[in-house]
Amino acid sequence: MRNFHTAAALLVCMSIIAAAPIAAGETAAGGAMKSLGAKTFAQPCPVWVIGSYDAAGKPNVMTASWAAICCSQPPMVTVSLRKATYTYGSIMASKAFTVNVPSEEFLKEAAYFGSVSGRDVDKFKESGLTPVKSSLVNAPYIKEFPLVIECKLARTVELGLHTMFIGEIVDVKAAESVLGAGGAPDVAKLKPLIFAPGNADYYGIGASLGSGKEPKKETGK
Amino acid sequence: MRNFHTAAALLVCMSIIAAAPIAAGETAAGGAMKSLGAKTFAQPCPVWVIGSYDAAGKPNVMTASWAAICCSQPPMVTVSLRKATYTYGSIMASKAFTVNVPSEEFLKEAAYFGSVSGRDVDKFKESGLTPVKSSLVNAPYIKEFPLVIECKLARTVELGLHTMFIGEIVDVKAAESVLGAGGAPDVAKLKPLIFAPGNADYYGIGASLGSGKEPKKETGK
Repeated sequence: MRNFHTAAALLVCMSIIAAAPIAAGETAAGGAMKSLGAKTFAQPCPVWVIGSYDAAGKPNVMTASWAAICCSQPPMVTVSLRKATYTYGSIMASKAFTVNVPSEEFLKEAAYFGSVSGRDVDKFKESGLTPVKSSLVNAPYIKEFPLVIECKLARTVELGLHTMFIGEIVDVKAAESVLGAGGAPDVAKLKPLIFAPGNADYYGIGASLGSGKEPKKETGK
Repeated sequence: MRNFHTAAALLVCMSIIAAAPIAAGETAAGGAMKSLGAKTFAQPCPVWVIGSYDAAGKPNVMTASWAAICCSQPPMVTVSLRKATYTYGSIMASKAFTVNVPSEEFLKEAAYFGSVSGRDVDKFKESGLTPVKSSLVNAPYIKEFPLVIECKLARTVELGLHTMFIGEIVDVKAAESVLGAGGAPDVAKLKPLIFAPGNADYYGIGASLGSGKEPKKETGK
């Protein structure tokens, strides 16, 4: 049974945004800028599904958007989670997690994984998706998702409502169908989801805009 | 004079990706997943322009994509920078920075800000954009950009090639033209840029995909 009264990670974030007090208005010099107060309004945010095992070894997943790549050498990602989440305790104990990147076709699953707690339901069973035990870290990944990043927990940073989990990337696995000519995942094939704080809906990836580099004015070197 | 030989933050990230060794192949159980090794291939990533003052008080900006919201209470953002960047030293000294979110129309400026160092050029002067001194934190923001987040440095975390700068959000300022009906920035109006590791081009925001929630099967509560 799907337990929709459980606070969803994304919905909690959005309700916090909505409840935050508005700071006094301030206008930028000469501009029409409006002060919105101290809110989490940076955009765009990713939609990543975090995989972990609970203490009983049950695979669980939750959706998070306060997340990013945070280091190139060693390759690392960071995901911020509230202590109240079931995943928080699981990663603290297992010292590992996976980042599963949904494509647009998994929109419904991504929203569902952020709307219920693994304390109450078996999200793999409910969604029909398949947990695969990583051979590299103590965490499950979602077989059907096109891009998976396997991480061992490197560090945690307590910030307030959220705790930052910093994971060292041990391997990236991708469906051959989303790889580009250079062998890296091609965002236009992957079609990842985008979360935008303050917006109720998810968004897709748009058109390529080019590199932003000016064409060279001179030929030769 | 634009100094394109200076290493660009994004290009360095991409070249690191390209240079990293490929791990031994591994196939997910029953799937057609390809192991790509330990690489920074999570997607999508934001394109944020980080504003700071150098020791002489000169306003500077650089483009970064290893960045995210990282806490809701207090509202915080994290941006990872290499020690080699000019901005690294500036934020360490000034203890403040701004996150300036470019819309698609500022693609060229965002790419430029990631391709040269503030050590070598005055990026505001070269781009023609206008620095505004924040009245709340010791950092400049870009007057022409539609969304600005002013941050005081809360913490730094040394990870390796990158250092994580964690900033507490003091205020968010947005152009009235990008605000939605609820008063928050509307991603469809803002049109932020997207960076996708492994892809040479920037991308725009695509269509709204809805909330991913199933329609209710029953009326009433």
